[in-house]
This record gives sequence, C-alpha cells and structure tokens, in this order.
Amino acid sequence: MFPELKNDRLLRAIKRQPVDCTPVWIMRQAGRYLPEYRATRKQAGDFLTLCKTPELACEVTLQPLRRFPLDAAILFSDILTIPDAMGLELSLDEGVGPRFAKPVRSRADIEKLPVLDIASDLGYVTDAVTLIRNELDGLVPLIGFTGSPWTLMTYMVEGGSSKDFALAKGMLHDDPESAHLLLQKVTDAVIEYLKAQAAAGAQVLMVFDSWGGALSDHTYSLFSLQYMQQIVGALKADPVAKDIPVSLFTKGGGNWLERIAETGCDVVGLDWTVSMDSARQRIGSSVALQGNMDPTVLYASPDKVSQEVERIVNEFGAHDGHIFNLGHGIHPGIDPENVSALVETVHRASKR
Amino acid sequence: MFPELKNDRLLRAIKRQPVDCTPVWIMRQAGRYLPEYRATRKQAGDFLTLCKTPELACEVTLQPLRRFPLDAAILFSDILTIPDAMGLELSLDEGVGPRFAKPVRSRADIEKLPVLDIASDLGYVTDAVTLIRNELDGLVPLIGFTGSPWTLMTYMVEGGSSKDFALAKGMLHDDPESAHLLLQKVTDAVIEYLKAQAAAGAQVLMVFDSWGGALSDHTYSLFSLQYMQQIVGALKADPVAKDIPVSLFTKGGGNWLERIAETGCDVVGLDWTVSMDSARQRIGSSVALQGNMDPTVLYASPDKVSQEVERIVNEFGAHDGHIFNLGHGIHPGIDPENVSALVETVHRASKR
Repeated sequence: MFPELKNDRLLRAIKRQPVDCTPVWIMRQAGRYLPEYRATRKQAGDFLTLCKTPELACEVTLQPLRRFPLDAAILFSDILTIPDAMGLELSLDEGVGPRFAKPVRSRADIEKLPVLDIASDLGYVTDAVTLIRNELDGLVPLIGFTGSPWTLMTYMVEGGSSKDFALAKGMLHDDPESAHLLLQKVTDAVIEYLKAQAAAGAQVLMVFDSWGGALSDHTYSLFSLQYMQQIVGALKADPVAKDIPVSLFTKGGGNWLERIAETGCDVVGLDWTVSMDSARQRIGSSVALQGNMDPTVLYASPDKVSQEVERIVNEFGAHDGHIFNLGHGIHPGIDPENVSALVETVHRASKR
Repeated sequence: MFPELKNDRLLRAIKRQPVDCTPVWIMRQAGRYLPEYRATRKQAGDFLTLCKTPELACEVTLQPLRRFPLDAAILFSDILTIPDAMGLELSLDEGVGPRFAKPVRSRADIEKLPVLDIASDLGYVTDAVTLIRNELDGLVPLIGFTGSPWTLMTYMVEGGSSKDFALAKGMLHDDPESAHLLLQKVTDAVIEYLKAQAAAGAQVLMVFDSWGGALSDHTYSLFSLQYMQQIVGALKADPVAKDIPVSLFTKGGGNWLERIAETGCDVVGLDWTVSMDSARQRIGSSVALQGNMDPTVLYASPDKVSQEVERIVNEFGAHDGHIFNLGHGIHPGIDPENVSALVETVHRASKR
C-alpha cells in the first residue's frame, strides 16, 4: 500500500472533473536544464547507469519537484529500455544520440527477438517505479511511460535517430509483413511493460509516439495507431491496469486527433501546431487534453513565457480536462527561472 | 513572345478543368539522384555557380524532362537567393548545408538590410527563367519559386539550418516588432522577385514554406501565413502577374489548410500527413491540390511505388484539380527507375 495522494489535480483533470487550477507537468522535467540533474548524472557516470539504478532514477525524478510546484512526477527512464532488453545493445553518448550496436534489419533479426520477462529483464524499471512512488509520499501522482511500437521500431531498424526514416519506412512499404511482425513483438512487450509499471505503482501510463507524425495519414493508422489501440485495449482489460489512465501522444499527429481519441485512451497529448480550442472542440468531450506550449518559448524572457502560458490557458477556456504541458520535451539549455515562471503562471492564470 | 504550350495538363488542373490524366512533377526533380545532374554540378564546381549561371541552371532544369514525361519544369535555383542578394553571404557546401557568414541577429542587422533591385541583384534568376522558357519550346509549363518569408527568416536568423529554430522563434516571442520588420522587408523583396519571374516567363509561381510547420497554430498565422497572404494579394493586383497561378506549400501545415486556401492562392501543396480525400473535402472546391506521396516510398521497389501512387490517385478520386507530387523534395539517393515508375503510374492510373 502506498501513501495517500495529497494533490489529485492531475487525476481529476484526466477524469474531466473540476479542479482548483489547471495541473501542470513538463515532458523531460528531470533533465539536463537542471544543474542538480547534471551533478547526479556526472556521479552516475553515464545515462544508462542513471536509468538502471533505481536510487539514482528516483533522485532525478524528484529533483524538479523540489524546485517547482509541479502536479505530477514522471519516472526517469528512456523509451529505448525495451529494445535494449531485447539485446540490441543500446548506447547513449552525449552529442551522438542513441545507438544500437545490433539493429534489426532482416526477417531473421525480427524472428530471433526474444519475448521479454519484464520482472527479470526490466526489473530495474519497476523497482524504480515502486521506490519513487514511496518516496513521493503522496505529494503528486507518478506517471509511467513507454515509447510507442512504431517509435521503437524506427530506432530498432535505423540503429539510432534518423532524419527521414528511410530504412524503417522502407520496411513498411517493401515488406509490410515483417514490419507487422516486428511491431507485434514490440507491442506485446510494451503491454507487459506497462502492466508491470501499473502493478509497481504508476498512477498514469503514457505512450510517447514521438515519430508517428513522420508517417502518412494511411501508414499512421496501419503501423502506429493500430498498435497503440491494442495497448489501450489490453490495459483496459487487465485487472490491475484497468483503472490507470492511459495517455497517448503522437507528436505531429494533429490531423489524427479524432482517431487517437477513439482508441479509448483517457488523455490525448497535443503539440503546438494544434490550437487548444479547436482540439477541445474536436475531441475534448471524450478525453482530457495535454499540452501544448512550444518548448522554444522558454528561450524568451520570463514575462514573455508567462504571456504565452496565459494565452494557452485562455485558449482552452473555463472547461474541465486540461493538463498543461509543453508540446515536446524541454530543451537542455533552458533557464530554470523560466520553468518557474511557466508553472506559477499556469496555476495563477487558471485559478477557478 | 514564347513558344506555344503543348502540354497544358498542369494549367488545366490548376483551374480545376478536366484533364486526360493527372499532371505530375516532383519537388527537386532536378537534383542529386540524377547522374547527369551530378556531372553538370561537378563541371560547375559548386552549387551556387550552378544557380548563378543561367546556361547551367537551364541545363539541369531540363535534364529530368529528357528522362521522364513530367508535366512541368521547375526553375533550378535555391530558396536562399534573396538573403544572399541582401549581403548575408551564402555558402552551400555538401554535407554542411547552407550557411550565412553574416546572419541577422539584431534590430540593427535588420534595419541595414538593403532593398533589392531584382534586375541588378537577381538578374541571373530572371535570365535563367527566360532562357529555360525558350528552351522548353512549349513542352511543359515552367514553375518559378521562392522561399516563404518565415522560412527565409529562419535561415537568416539562425545562420543556416536548425533543429529547433531557437533563435528565430526566440525573436518572434522576445521581440515581435523586430521579427515583423524583418519579415516585411523579406516579403517586399519576395513580391518583387516573383513579379520579375512572372515577367521573365514563369507560368506558375510557388512559395515554399518549408518551416511553417514548426510554428504554433497561433504564430503560424501571425508570422508566416500573414506574409504569404500579402504575397498572393500583391501578385493578384499586378498587371503582369495577376494571371499567373500561385501555389502555397507549408510543409506540416495540414491543420491549417482552410486558412491557406483563404489567402486566394490557386494551389495548396500537401505533405503526406494529410489524406487526399479529406483535403479535397476540406478545401478542394476552392483550390487545386498538389501532393502528396511520402518521398521515402521511393526507397521501396518499383512495384511498391506504383501501388502507393495508385492508392493516392484513387484516394483523390475522379475529381478535377489534382497535381501529383511528393510531399517534400526527392531524396538524393533515390534510383531514377523508381521515379520512372512513379510518373508512368500517375498517368496510367488516372487516365480518364
């Protein structure tokens, strides 16, 4: 049993219940823009050690909450833990980005991918979830997460980041059967991974479809959304996970909001290319909406940041079901003072 | 007086008149994927010499038309000719991308930007237009083009390409007045530039808003669309340019199609994130639509390319007003055989 939750703004907003003010958290809120994060990372030696050591992952998860009155914590981890556990050998060197020593390029590569046992292969993640949940002591809810199957597939096939996803998209067109086999294997692992995070104490589960927006309207439905739909369905049918809200975020998915909401998820994440009021009119009666400030606004001065936060809060208007966030992760060079201005303004400008 | 036009499919499609089959051209159809282009470029020594020598620009413009039965030629040039003529000192080195030796970072930098005299500053472009139009001998219409003011601003402020546009977007938020001054100066130059291309023989004028999709819903209208609207208005009021169709393409602009069509432009370009049928239903009664195959499909085999072309042709359906194209420029590594399959399939699958 975990400590009682003191701040339930996030969970109320997800249920589209009235709140005293709009809850706010920030994608990558634990990260390089914080000096204390850089110190812990230095202590850990490298990024993967930070992810794989529950005490250190817990420490950096809590760091932003000591500075800012955020309304949620999000597990410190990486979206690439699953392919790493499948044996692709992840390295995450600063300046280089993620690399897999053993990318997945052929049918044979796909067929030999192992079925994960989450408890043994990714126990460091669920251990971190439980530790953080206890350490939070009910301060705010804890969000667990995963990469979407398509997003994981891009890294697995390309062997790292990519500008145009030539190899991963090439597989979708040239050998859709192999692509589906790969996506299904990843989806099966993601489902078990999220169930395990829920069982370990995660109070919201988020799926980051960072590269769904690179797909066409047609291939998005077939190769990304279909698998996120499976994930939502499986979680809603699971005795433990069924009461844990699920949030889907396809960056660049503004054209497909209706389809995303129809998966049965509880929250739809928005990037800044969609206006809050149009998104609310399109799907906001069926789901909560998370977003959507352009992270580059945080390069401006604190008063300009506050102005833009106010504009977004007002654009959403006096409705229930808004979770304020950026439309993408915070950049490493941002001044924490500007984050302070953001959080303070969300709470002040949305005060009921 | 120019030679009479033999193939008017493109111009008919733009007017949403019946055609015998759908016209097709390809963004960056003259480019590195063609061995004959690489040979001419080698001969020129560098990319800028190629752009600035009308005979060479003409040669590479015509090269893809000798291989493929394309329905349009597009002037070989670069979107950065205007800032280069303004004195920012463009260099375009392979592997490095465009760089400006003198980026625009301050109010003083903006204020000292010169007003261009197109005839003397960019005469090499209008000379190339006239030469190409004559050399085409009426084979197909010639498209002239420019970068959009916002897209040019990103390069001018960042000093080159950018992942997140921190400086350019920073200016929008921190000093919108300076940003508007810069955008207005660029817009004034773009208008004169396009008028001069029309007077020199361009039969369609296209505005590439390559980075409009990086803006928020709110800033797109203020800082990109507003200036493209000015351009369309000025061209439609010009005695020479008024009959030349104008095409606007905001990559990543799928959420804003209605607003783009309302500028009074004749063609709206689509990337692959929007489905052809939904775009047609949203705006296709007021404008022609150009697009929208994902360029990475060309990494697949010729029969998969043909399959996807057929899917898009059928998705648009038996309506007037479709110009087939990719949703972004063709990649340098593509096999010309696949381009051949694309062009052939567009004509065959759309035969009336």
